[in-house]
Parts: sequence; structure tokens; C-alpha cells
Amino acid sequence: MSELQITDPAGIERRSFEIIRAELSARGITPDPGEAPVLMRVIHTSADFDYAETLYFSPHAADLMRRALAEGADIVTDTEMAKAGINKRRLAGYGGEVRCFMSDPDVAEEAKARGITRAAVSMERAARIQKPCLFAIGNAPTALISLHALMEAGAAAPAGVIAVPVGFVNVVEAKELFVGASVPHIVARGRKGGSNVAAAVCNALLYSMET
Amino acid sequence: MSELQITDPAGIERRSFEIIRAELSARGITPDPGEAPVLMRVIHTSADFDYAETLYFSPHAADLMRRALAEGADIVTDTEMAKAGINKRRLAGYGGEVRCFMSDPDVAEEAKARGITRAAVSMERAARIQKPCLFAIGNAPTALISLHALMEAGAAAPAGVIAVPVGFVNVVEAKELFVGASVPHIVARGRKGGSNVAAAVCNALLYSMET
Repeated sequence: MSELQITDPAGIERRSFEIIRAELSARGITPDPGEAPVLMRVIHTSADFDYAETLYFSPHAADLMRRALAEGADIVTDTEMAKAGINKRRLAGYGGEVRCFMSDPDVAEEAKARGITRAAVSMERAARIQKPCLFAIGNAPTALISLHALMEAGAAAPAGVIAVPVGFVNVVEAKELFVGASVPHIVARGRKGGSNVAAAVCNALLYSMET
Repeated sequence: MSELQITDPAGIERRSFEIIRAELSARGITPDPGEAPVLMRVIHTSADFDYAETLYFSPHAADLMRRALAEGADIVTDTEMAKAGINKRRLAGYGGEVRCFMSDPDVAEEAKARGITRAAVSMERAARIQKPCLFAIGNAPTALISLHALMEAGAAAPAGVIAVPVGFVNVVEAKELFVGASVPHIVARGRKGGSNVAAAVCNALLYSMET
């Protein structure tokens, strides 16, 4: 069947992953089986093979995050866009939900009063959630910087950190804070990333869980 | 002031655009003034300078789309994620709103009954909106293919088409349908694009309007 005849979304996705796997292989890249679903879905969402070089996993990060999700962990995002992109029905099947505090009116008020970013206030609120959480940060370097400071102070204990903001100022440095941290982490090193990448990582974890 | 000291989001964004402009200039690229805000925001949202080569504007597309927005056009998206990323408050200031039919339960039902994609059904519904609309398509090639067929049949008359799906199957071909079309269009040629790019194009248009 020629590619143009494939019109069902599931068929398109299957064929897309075959193409991605073949192109990775042509570049001499055979991803770790636990990490492959994440890397491939990030490339699927960006058509950008740079992530094969830049997406960094701490040891067993993908497995540990899948386990947290299987045990009902929530996912905290720093944008409504990442929240919109995550498969919330699949997450709910394991007992988790997506939490994003960025648009809460009192977050904006508090940020203004204290002269810090909404993202920083959002991380403080997320740190107080009384259950395991994965933090999926695709936009705000200040969210990562705040989360890291909270962790250093013993005030936050994420089940995992997906550190994938995109950008040109403070972004590389903020992401590097997590490389080598003791928490399981997946980091898009360099400038690239985004809310779409954050959502893709979460969905890849959800779709590659043993059900 | 060193870059690490910049912590306010507005300052980070301003500095980011300075960096993008400088790097474009270093590559010998000076974008058209009407198109520059769109190209630069797409690079800002992706950290990917490939868009300087691939983002295609039909003559005066950005100006014509800004005019449509100023006159109150709605924006139709093919994902909730793109909808989440668009500045809806700014759009509402001109009288427009973002419409996305993808999650409507009866769209899924109708798609299943007819054996077509939800994206195709969504485009049919959007084509019936009785006011000018920009179509911002960042995900589904079948949305573009359906929209193009509706236009050919005289059943859809978008005020503009932002054709920026990402992907590996049917995507390049679906986007090329619009290059040279009579409707104002902005097309991310090649594989790259996405819901984040669709939202970035819309926001760039909104932020570069004379108020």
C-alpha cells in the first residue's frame, strides 16, 4: 500500500514510528529499549532527530517514571498547553491526574506581590501536593530553578523530573541543574524542547506501560 | 546585566528575540518586516532555525491574516493543544475566539460512522461557521486534505490557512496542497511543525497587530 493511501490515524502513527526507527538505525542509533518509546515519540512530535543526541535519561529514568505512573502519580506541568497534550484519560486509568497551577488567579496575584514568576509560585504549590508527582516542565526555566531550590531545601520530592523547556536565555543552565541529580530525570539538553515535548514524553511513558 | 540575572519573563522574551535576530543576521537572513514577527516567534517556540528556510508565506499573508484578526476573525485549530497555546484574551479583544471541534463527542461518533477521521469531520463543521476564520492546523494532515477538498468544492472559504502539521506520513504532501493556493497561507514546508508552531504563528500575528 502506498503511503498516501494510509489515512487512518493509527496506521499513520504506526508507519511514522517505522520511519523513525529506520532513520535512527541509518544514523547508527539503537536506543535503549526502555528509553526508545520516549525518544521516538519526541521525534514523532517534532520531526527533529537532534533529540537522539540531546535527550538524556538518568539510569532507569523511564522505568522508574513508568512505575510511579503505574502507582498513581500525578503529573505537574508548567503550561496549560502541555496539560492539554497529555492523555488524561490514560493517566486517570492509573489513578493520576494532570495538575497545572499557572492559570490560577491567585498564583498571578502572589507572584506579583512577591516579585517572582508565576512558574515559581506554581512549583511551590505543586511541591505541597500530598502524593507522588512527576514534574513535566516544558516552558519556564524559572520553574526548573525554583523546583531545584525546593528540592535542595527538602521542600519538594518529585517522583521524577522531565526537564525540557525550550529557549535562549537561562534555559540550558536551568536544565543542566538536573543532569546528575538524585531524582530520576529526563532532560532535553541544549536549547530545544517545549510543551509539546513535555507532553510527548508523558504520553510515551503512558503508552509504553505494561497494562 | 548578565543573562543569568534576567528572571522576569518579559525580559527573558526580549533578550531571546535579540538573540534570534542576531543569529538570523549571522546566517545572512533578514526577514521581511511583515513576516519577521511570525518567523521569530516560531523559532522562539522551537529553538529551531530550520524554520528560516522552511516557513513559507504567500504574498502579504501575514498582513492579510492580521487584518482578518483585526476584523474579528475566529481561529479554528485541529488540536486542544494548539487552542490552549493561543492567547485567547488577546484574540477576544478583537472579537474572535478559538474553535476546536476535535473533542466533541458527536464528532467522534460521526467520524466512526462514516469511516473518516475526526479531523476531517472537524473541518466540515468549521467550514459552516458563519464568520471569517483563520484555520491553524498543526497536527492532522487529514485536516488539511479535507479543508482543501472543501475549498475546491466551494464549501469552505477560510480567511487564511496556517498549514503546519508535523510528521512523517502524508504531511509534506498535505501541506504542499496549499502552497500557491489563492487563500492567504503560511506553510511550514517539510516534515517539521506542530501544534506549538500553529499556536506560535497565531500569537505572533496577534502580538504584531497595530492596536
